[in-house]
Amino acid sequence: MADVSIMVKQQSTIFLAGPPLVKAATGEEVTDEELGGADVHCKKSGVADYYANSESHAIELAREAVSNTNQSFVEATTASFLPPKYDITDIYGIVNRDLRLSFDVREVIARLVDGSDFDEFKALYGSTLVCGFARIEGQLIGIVANNGILFSESAQKGAHFIELCAKRKVPLLFLQNITGFMVGKQYEEGGIAKHGAKLVMAVSCADVPKFTVIIGGSYGAGNYGMCGRAYDPTMIWMWPNARISVMGGIQAANVLTQVKQDVKKRQGEEWEPAQKEAYKQNIVERYEQEGSPYYASARLWDDGIIDPKTTRSVLSQALKASLNAPIPDSEFGIFRM
Amino acid sequence: MADVSIMVKQQSTIFLAGPPLVKAATGEEVTDEELGGADVHCKKSGVADYYANSESHAIELAREAVSNTNQSFVEATTASFLPPKYDITDIYGIVNRDLRLSFDVREVIARLVDGSDFDEFKALYGSTLVCGFARIEGQLIGIVANNGILFSESAQKGAHFIELCAKRKVPLLFLQNITGFMVGKQYEEGGIAKHGAKLVMAVSCADVPKFTVIIGGSYGAGNYGMCGRAYDPTMIWMWPNARISVMGGIQAANVLTQVKQDVKKRQGEEWEPAQKEAYKQNIVERYEQEGSPYYASARLWDDGIIDPKTTRSVLSQALKASLNAPIPDSEFGIFRM
Amino acid sequence: MADVSIMVKQQSTIFLAGPPLVKAATGEEVTDEELGGADVHCKKSGVADYYANSESHAIELAREAVSNTNQSFVEATTASFLPPKYDITDIYGIVNRDLRLSFDVREVIARLVDGSDFDEFKALYGSTLVCGFARIEGQLIGIVANNGILFSESAQKGAHFIELCAKRKVPLLFLQNITGFMVGKQYEEGGIAKHGAKLVMAVSCADVPKFTVIIGGSYGAGNYGMCGRAYDPTMIWMWPNARISVMGGIQAANVLTQVKQDVKKRQGEEWEPAQKEAYKQNIVERYEQEGSPYYASARLWDDGIIDPKTTRSVLSQALKASLNAPIPDSEFGIFRM
Amino acid sequence: MADVSIMVKQQSTIFLAGPPLVKAATGEEVTDEELGGADVHCKKSGVADYYANSESHAIELAREAVSNTNQSFVEATTASFLPPKYDITDIYGIVNRDLRLSFDVREVIARLVDGSDFDEFKALYGSTLVCGFARIEGQLIGIVANNGILFSESAQKGAHFIELCAKRKVPLLFLQNITGFMVGKQYEEGGIAKHGAKLVMAVSCADVPKFTVIIGGSYGAGNYGMCGRAYDPTMIWMWPNARISVMGGIQAANVLTQVKQDVKKRQGEEWEPAQKEAYKQNIVERYEQEGSPYYASARLWDDGIIDPKTTRSVLSQALKASLNAPIPDSEFGIFRM
Amino acid sequence: MADVSIMVKQQSTIFLAGPPLVKAATGEEVTDEELGGADVHCKKSGVADYYANSESHAIELAREAVSNTNQSFVEATTASFLPPKYDITDIYGIVNRDLRLSFDVREVIARLVDGSDFDEFKALYGSTLVCGFARIEGQLIGIVANNGILFSESAQKGAHFIELCAKRKVPLLFLQNITGFMVGKQYEEGGIAKHGAKLVMAVSCADVPKFTVIIGGSYGAGNYGMCGRAYDPTMIWMWPNARISVMGGIQAANVLTQVKQDVKKRQGEEWEPAQKEAYKQNIVERYEQEGSPYYASARLWDDGIIDPKTTRSVLSQALKASLNAPIPDSEFGIFRM
Amino acid sequence: MADVSIMVKQQSTIFLAGPPLVKAATGEEVTDEELGGADVHCKKSGVADYYANSESHAIELAREAVSNTNQSFVEATTASFLPPKYDITDIYGIVNRDLRLSFDVREVIARLVDGSDFDEFKALYGSTLVCGFARIEGQLIGIVANNGILFSESAQKGAHFIELCAKRKVPLLFLQNITGFMVGKQYEEGGIAKHGAKLVMAVSCADVPKFTVIIGGSYGAGNYGMCGRAYDPTMIWMWPNARISVMGGIQAANVLTQVKQDVKKRQGEEWEPAQKEAYKQNIVERYEQEGSPYYASARLWDDGIIDPKTTRSVLSQALKASLNAPIPDSEFGIFRM
Repeated sequence: MADVSIMVKQQSTIFLAGPPLVKAATGEEVTDEELGGADVHCKKSGVADYYANSESHAIELAREAVSNTNQSFVEATTASFLPPKYDITDIYGIVNRDLRLSFDVREVIARLVDGSDFDEFKALYGSTLVCGFARIEGQLIGIVANNGILFSESAQKGAHFIELCAKRKVPLLFLQNITGFMVGKQYEEGGIAKHGAKLVMAVSCADVPKFTVIIGGSYGAGNYGMCGRAYDPTMIWMWPNARISVMGGIQAANVLTQVKQDVKKRQGEEWEPAQKEAYKQNIVERYEQEGSPYYASARLWDDGIIDPKTTRSVLSQALKASLNAPIPDSEFGIFRM
Repeated sequence: MADVSIMVKQQSTIFLAGPPLVKAATGEEVTDEELGGADVHCKKSGVADYYANSESHAIELAREAVSNTNQSFVEATTASFLPPKYDITDIYGIVNRDLRLSFDVREVIARLVDGSDFDEFKALYGSTLVCGFARIEGQLIGIVANNGILFSESAQKGAHFIELCAKRKVPLLFLQNITGFMVGKQYEEGGIAKHGAKLVMAVSCADVPKFTVIIGGSYGAGNYGMCGRAYDPTMIWMWPNARISVMGGIQAANVLTQVKQDVKKRQGEEWEPAQKEAYKQNIVERYEQEGSPYYASARLWDDGIIDPKTTRSVLSQALKASLNAPIPDSEFGIFRM
Repeated sequence: MADVSIMVKQQSTIFLAGPPLVKAATGEEVTDEELGGADVHCKKSGVADYYANSESHAIELAREAVSNTNQSFVEATTASFLPPKYDITDIYGIVNRDLRLSFDVREVIARLVDGSDFDEFKALYGSTLVCGFARIEGQLIGIVANNGILFSESAQKGAHFIELCAKRKVPLLFLQNITGFMVGKQYEEGGIAKHGAKLVMAVSCADVPKFTVIIGGSYGAGNYGMCGRAYDPTMIWMWPNARISVMGGIQAANVLTQVKQDVKKRQGEEWEPAQKEAYKQNIVERYEQEGSPYYASARLWDDGIIDPKTTRSVLSQALKASLNAPIPDSEFGIFRM
Repeated sequence: MADVSIMVKQQSTIFLAGPPLVKAATGEEVTDEELGGADVHCKKSGVADYYANSESHAIELAREAVSNTNQSFVEATTASFLPPKYDITDIYGIVNRDLRLSFDVREVIARLVDGSDFDEFKALYGSTLVCGFARIEGQLIGIVANNGILFSESAQKGAHFIELCAKRKVPLLFLQNITGFMVGKQYEEGGIAKHGAKLVMAVSCADVPKFTVIIGGSYGAGNYGMCGRAYDPTMIWMWPNARISVMGGIQAANVLTQVKQDVKKRQGEEWEPAQKEAYKQNIVERYEQEGSPYYASARLWDDGIIDPKTTRSVLSQALKASLNAPIPDSEFGIFRM
Repeated sequence: MADVSIMVKQQSTIFLAGPPLVKAATGEEVTDEELGGADVHCKKSGVADYYANSESHAIELAREAVSNTNQSFVEATTASFLPPKYDITDIYGIVNRDLRLSFDVREVIARLVDGSDFDEFKALYGSTLVCGFARIEGQLIGIVANNGILFSESAQKGAHFIELCAKRKVPLLFLQNITGFMVGKQYEEGGIAKHGAKLVMAVSCADVPKFTVIIGGSYGAGNYGMCGRAYDPTMIWMWPNARISVMGGIQAANVLTQVKQDVKKRQGEEWEPAQKEAYKQNIVERYEQEGSPYYASARLWDDGIIDPKTTRSVLSQALKASLNAPIPDSEFGIFRM
Repeated sequence: MADVSIMVKQQSTIFLAGPPLVKAATGEEVTDEELGGADVHCKKSGVADYYANSESHAIELAREAVSNTNQSFVEATTASFLPPKYDITDIYGIVNRDLRLSFDVREVIARLVDGSDFDEFKALYGSTLVCGFARIEGQLIGIVANNGILFSESAQKGAHFIELCAKRKVPLLFLQNITGFMVGKQYEEGGIAKHGAKLVMAVSCADVPKFTVIIGGSYGAGNYGMCGRAYDPTMIWMWPNARISVMGGIQAANVLTQVKQDVKKRQGEEWEPAQKEAYKQNIVERYEQEGSPYYASARLWDDGIIDPKTTRSVLSQALKASLNAPIPDSEFGIFRM
């Protein structure tokens, strides 16, 4: 159903059912080329539009077809911009394979944005979520980045900042490294459920290009608030050190082992330490395996794993591509106050 | 994120993380009720809006909430309408468990629509696809129903009729009983690929309420043209006799057995008849199992299996519900002529 | 290119070129029925949609097709309305065959509108153009009717009233009986050209249903100001006594004879009285003939000649039909003040 | 600049400058009637449209003009509705002249709404602001009513409820009896400034008909949050017991006397008790006088003082009138979270 | 009714009726200048806006008026473009006065477009209609050109290509040299009527600037499909060799002579060869005369006859002018499939 | 409710109620800084967004905030433009302190606009109101300037010119020096009331940026027609010599003295010349004082008093700022013709 279709001579074929199925269905014997080759579809059926003599001819025709779509594209801004002040490969030293070791996400931002210049919003409030404006190769972007666990204040600040970007039609970049929202009686009474909902609503209703990079852990409901896959970011990438799961492997192993132990105890059963350890270890390993970015990427849950040092240029290209479409007005639902 | 939330006293709970997780994360011990019961969220956190004393009180509050949404709903048309002239239970005798036995789909239509009155469109052309207007409990609907294999003429007729309905904002009903498009050299040369594409484009771009009932087989690409699940019908149901797969089980078994036989022959291997038969039988059984409507429905691929005799009333309710939203103008892509 | 086409068996035919032309072009001999009868187009080509067995069957199919267009139509207002207080056939005595005899157009209006109730606008100003609101079978309408020659004041009043109707989306009825705008030095200095232009702009930009009835003379530029054919009234009718021309026949004859006489005099020629009279008479006759409503109607310049006594019912039907389409906002150009 | 203007014979006059000014400016002596009476403007200048012979004739013409505006009006809902269960005159006993005596605003609501049926929203949270849905003569309305001083929770709840009404296009009724927002260090740190701002933004951006009745005190910033005059309610009324000022008279007197006393002390001056008392008394009296609803109403700051017992019928008429215009979508600014 | 009107002193005049008519109507004698000269309308009546002392002054004022319309105009694209590779005057040798001699329309296109670069669409299918993209002085254009009689395939291809251009808002150029659609039983059965209708609908609904050049014959229904005058091209030109009629003169003479001969035979009359020849010759001559581009152009049926060698520059200017208005979305009717 | 708020350390404070009120209301004693300083609102309450260490830091933050609003601004047109041909300080000699001395407003215009180039509209008609197009630092503007008392012709010309500018989206500049509309019987009969109303409607409905400079007197209803404060000009400035009142002081004194004298005479009282003179003088002085631009400007009735020699640069900046918002289509009401 493409606007334009190009077929290569004695190479391309199009058919509703190929020769084996045709034979099974009707007994007719026919070659691929006879059934649906470029000659059939460019000359007789009219199914295809351009007849290429070779692959390179086809590429040439495709280039010509694109040049005739009557579209203009967002070019690199002619205005000059500064590179980051700090070397992007420093990220290898900032971010650790062991996700339990924390780092200041501003160190990462400083290596991604023009002139390492970051206009931080509400820097002193809700400080576990870092928000602010910066530019990537001259294009303005709003950044929302984790710097610890999410509290009510962080969630409110994030929702507020995303509202601002949506109103101004500024694209959003989420740097996701999140173990989740703060939990417990005090926080429930403080309404963390409704404050978290505000953040999630802001993320899901902000109708600007949204880009997510998972630069560390992505655990539990925090994934939603930080524009995970379910919230349809324009593009979502992972760094090789990323981990995605409901909770961390060791934590999950402890919880599940405890639950099983309690069940056994109630039933008056024994649990041999070795067995218990094996049970635990098995969980850790399964989480390790399925939480791997390669596991997720292989299932097309994201748009690829990227090397941290290419992040700036990947973002720049994606931003420019996204700006070829007009940004609509965002319409938010009802914010539960 | 609902507009209105109601919690039942000492019954409902809402929390970001339940007591076990809270304990694991922070060591705090707390009951469900203390952590996120109706008292917490209706009085302290403000997360919920209405406090119900009991389940029946909650239902009463929900009714009141709906009555305050300031919406008016499409009521049963006051205009009187006629029941079908023929008894709907006749369908049990018209449609056969053995899908290879064909029937005239007009016999089914006559049992679903007001007064059994069907205004058939292009009755004599492309006759393997039956199209036309009828009413269900007074509501106008366009019906597209299979009556054999799809040819280029049937596909063009279907596309034309769907265009008409979309322009007039008439909802569509697909009665799906389809073994696929006609295949073979003659049909490819006749452009069945582009004519089929017209039908698929018409189906996917027609922005009216669309309802699909799978009343027999649903095989291969025909599923797309007849508004299968991938084309987002408003609602899609199956009758208990329905079957969904890429092709029929026996046909598939033959094709795959033949392919394996050819491979063995090329490799100079023997294949014992019993083994071969077992191989074939295995395929037939797997198709039989996975092609069952119960297999599909259990995976939430549809909106339920319905008894043929309830089809008219199910359709009537769904139609009325769908008409509460305004029907937009449809915008079609480029029809490949 | 109709939405729906119906062909009658062995009666209807459709073809790009009929049998004689086909024979001339290609030598093929073929009957009408074979070339483009109902059987060809309903069964083979798919050019037509419904196959009727007879004319009466075709009409039945057409009725069904209309009932399936999913449109609702403006019905007769259920609200009761009064007939005019005066008998409509009185018009035969009010309007004279000799258009030089004038009458008060309010006498005509009183015989057309509900309860003979006319809410006249600016009755005392610009009195040669009568404007006001009335109802025809319950439907509100704005009437603009000539009652003498158009002066600057009349034109301004008409433009003002038409602006009012356009803003309120009230259909307009023009009762045309016009010898033109007032001419001469005093009136040109008073800006009759710009005031007349205001009236013409108001007429041409008012995007409401417009109905014109020529109930007497329609001469010169007055025809434009009173929504003549060039200004696309929704419908335009004439009474049998109407006359359309640039000026009246006798007046034209005098002017043209005078011009010719002047030419002859300059050339030193004589003009015999009999010849002169014949010349003049010839002009009168030609104006008489070509100014006849039958001459114009035969050339499809209007929507028919109507009997004065049917005018009310004709208007009522046309009004209702026109109200099936929504009335858009009118956008006026720049009024030259 | 009215659409339609009517002048009464020998009574109405219109002129840019009256006879005295004309005489002063140009020396011309002329009567009112000669200069700008109905005869001048209906016959000569065209400034007016209808000429009435008397006042009663003018009223008749005005009625006819309104009937020709081509508008349909919201009628009393034909659906039957229940009167309040409690007598509206009970309000005289519920509300006290001494505004320091508090009452439960639900007692007032129960006497205004159909069947005394009030669907209260978040009844247990932020309980100093009562919010909920009810109907007045069958028309759905959202009520926001003070029941004490405004806290952060009350303000958030009010903002949330107003968002709901705006999304659903439900008109709002504010019952204002407000001494202000809670003040002090604890509340500032709790962000009462931003929570109050949410309420004010919700009030000012909700583009539905808004009605305010000041049923008690209206002091300070609370006036803004409760849709005071500066926030353009569709209509705003006061009960005779209402008081409007920055703060209560006695409170203001104490504050200002204290301030003056401090100044005197610093300057080493004495202040005689009698003088001091007179000073204080003077302030009390001035607040009493200028805070009176009669003082405000006389300056056209509201739409009138109404008797509590007519409140229901006044609201019903105003509601119906307001619903003649379509309710647009509301567009909120950025909620500061 | 122009936005701006300029009059030249003692030269321009404006009046509703000139001096002779004024004299005839009222007896007043007055000169042109006195009645409606620049002095009258610029000073007294206000009918005109600018008073020019001379023609050259008027042109200067007109230039100033245009520069104050606050419009920006499409300039020549600054991007450099290539001239055609082939000399445009070659067209004199390609196209023949005798329209029965055919030529390849690609030879003409190659002399009109930038770099003689033509991106042909579906070159091998429906080859009697040549479609494709090219640029004229840098502006993208879609070309639809006849290269023989129209078949169903050609019509479908043309409709498809026009849909593409309309979606992309690319202006269309029709090079018309058409003897009509293919006729006969086989083609009617193949549905040429509905395929032709698709082309005509595509042409009439494509809401882009459309330019038609009649570069050869324009006969019969082919004229419609190729955006003839009835389909409102933005501009339509003819080359001096063009011919427009229902069919060719000699063909028409043969058909009509045959018809007359048949009639005579039936009536038992003789027809002398000389008379017959004269009859035939008369028809040929009349077709020759009335089919001439000069005959048509003199009746304002087109926008002028252009010299083939100026075609490129004429098109370039017209294209630029047309692009000053925004191109709307096209809305197609229902394509009869 | 600003989008972004910045607080300066130990300098800025925000609170709903300051320390004195808090103390009065609750007895709590607290300093400004503790109650609502930058530390409270940037760290604890989240009320403010940016924490500045000093005023200059705050300005820097504000600049950064503006640069992140994602707006582009209208820059000085790069196209070169000419300065006025005449020195702007000549205005000091053209305009007189004594407003009764008239001057030709074209002399002022020539000193404000690019190249002193003024495209005057209808220069010879309604000459007491000068209208025309010019440019200020390259930006097109429509100028409406008083050159005497307003007659019907001037008002019509002004309305016409403003319609033109509104249609073309050209900003308007009003140079106000107006004693009012012409008065008296002749003018009332000529409809000056309706012609004046046209001007006022044109001014109030023209939805383009409007700038008013009061360069002399601004008396009576002329103030409305020339876009006085009540008609919401985008900006309104005064020159130091301007005067605003219902009429001139001496004129008012004469009228009021005459009125009082007449009253005394009727009552048989005497009026001593000295008293009478004092009475008169008192009026003159009061008019002199309250008619002063400083009196008006001090009450914020305008946007400031500007030195004539800065007028061009002030206008240029205001124009550019206003063009940052898109100019909507203007919708006029009904022009009373």
